[in-house]
Amino acid sequence: MSLAARPSNIGTRFHNYLYEELGLDFVYKAFTTTDLPAAIAGIRALGIRGCGVSMPFKEACIEHVDVMHDSAAAIASVNTIVNSGGVLHAYNTDYEAVAMLLAEHRVPPTLTAAVAGSGGMAKAVVAALRDNGFGEVTVIARNEATGRALADQYGFDWRADMGELRPGLLVNATPIGMSGGPGAELSPFPREAVGAADAVFDVVALPPQTPLIRAATEQGTTVITGAEVIALQAAAQFELYTGVRPTPEQIRRASEYSRS
Amino acid sequence: MSLAARPSNIGTRFHNYLYEELGLDFVYKAFTTTDLPAAIAGIRALGIRGCGVSMPFKEACIEHVDVMHDSAAAIASVNTIVNSGGVLHAYNTDYEAVAMLLAEHRVPPTLTAAVAGSGGMAKAVVAALRDNGFGEVTVIARNEATGRALADQYGFDWRADMGELRPGLLVNATPIGMSGGPGAELSPFPREAVGAADAVFDVVALPPQTPLIRAATEQGTTVITGAEVIALQAAAQFELYTGVRPTPEQIRRASEYSRS
Repeated sequence: MSLAARPSNIGTRFHNYLYEELGLDFVYKAFTTTDLPAAIAGIRALGIRGCGVSMPFKEACIEHVDVMHDSAAAIASVNTIVNSGGVLHAYNTDYEAVAMLLAEHRVPPTLTAAVAGSGGMAKAVVAALRDNGFGEVTVIARNEATGRALADQYGFDWRADMGELRPGLLVNATPIGMSGGPGAELSPFPREAVGAADAVFDVVALPPQTPLIRAATEQGTTVITGAEVIALQAAAQFELYTGVRPTPEQIRRASEYSRS
Repeated sequence: MSLAARPSNIGTRFHNYLYEELGLDFVYKAFTTTDLPAAIAGIRALGIRGCGVSMPFKEACIEHVDVMHDSAAAIASVNTIVNSGGVLHAYNTDYEAVAMLLAEHRVPPTLTAAVAGSGGMAKAVVAALRDNGFGEVTVIARNEATGRALADQYGFDWRADMGELRPGLLVNATPIGMSGGPGAELSPFPREAVGAADAVFDVVALPPQTPLIRAATEQGTTVITGAEVIALQAAAQFELYTGVRPTPEQIRRASEYSRS
């Protein structure tokens, strides 16, 4: 199951598609709640195997789980709970997926990087950059309190806006560009910064071609999309829940289906 | 969803069959728990629309619901919880189904009746008999405490065994005759009593043809089966959960599918 303020169908479609494809006796359902402690106690009491955790519960759920695994502890943010016989294990597969994609796409850690955002996904991105060897990272966030706190935690810089900064890697970890949102048609980075970048990474998954990804693709820049993040992190969740690792081809098809 | 010590697939198959048939956006899943208060709090917190309640939770759940409707209050036993915006309403559709079937099969309330059992289902049966106008009812139960308490509540008699009693209506409200149970091949009533009865009612639904129902059918006696109870009470639950009343033909097909 999943818990989110605004439940989406993406996880439901991804997981149920693979349960059927692989003949597994599971069913996935998206939930919301106004009582997080009782919802998590219910997961434990009902023997629900796992729960994907989205905004705004990624930090609030920490005090209700039993075991914080490294991926969640590193960024104090949980996106996956696995119920193992009444013991709730917490992970963050977003963090794992971001780190894997930076390596897979061979984005060199010698690049300077800017990360837009200071929420849960930004924490995952900044930690993954640090752990992949990036040394010069700037957190771009209007919210000085959360932005500076995130940057300080890893010894990086904070700025309220890009200004004249022209980093080699741009990462969007805000909802800007998300379909249906207030910034659906916007890019979080000025055109000049996109033009100067060697690689662009957008965590927004819907649409896969955000304005930022479109602009970067037009310029022949290396891109990593939110669709890749969501597919990889969902595959990691799938394996944690079921013990079964789908093939890359199955993940690709489930991911495509989940966004259709 | 449902809560039972030993979850069965019957409800899951019945409800999911009709959700698909009627194009309703619901999914049904059977659960068990060792923490009933947290499980029910979870239903409320997750916004799960409804819950079928089976042994041993039918009485224990009373203190955790908000509104006891007449069918549940009459026998202090809940088999259905409906979550209406966080307010948990409790019903007993077994009681309703038993009362309806006695009327539908035109079992005359002038008959003397014996009810084997003193658990939750026996309470539903005894109350339904009283409410359908039966005046001479004997509760047959080895457990004197629960058997006598049930009989006394309605001014009826209690006996530990049938002895020479030959009532016009025999009702089995024990698990005797249930497939997979210790008494699968047994009948709760002696052959002579079955031979002397005008009508036989067995609440055991699996198999539909219990040893008791088989013996009664061979003699041409009017029979009411547990399959009829479970289909009717499940249809009542279905309507409480979804607001949609399936047709008798849809109920028949869903019921057949649920036992296949």
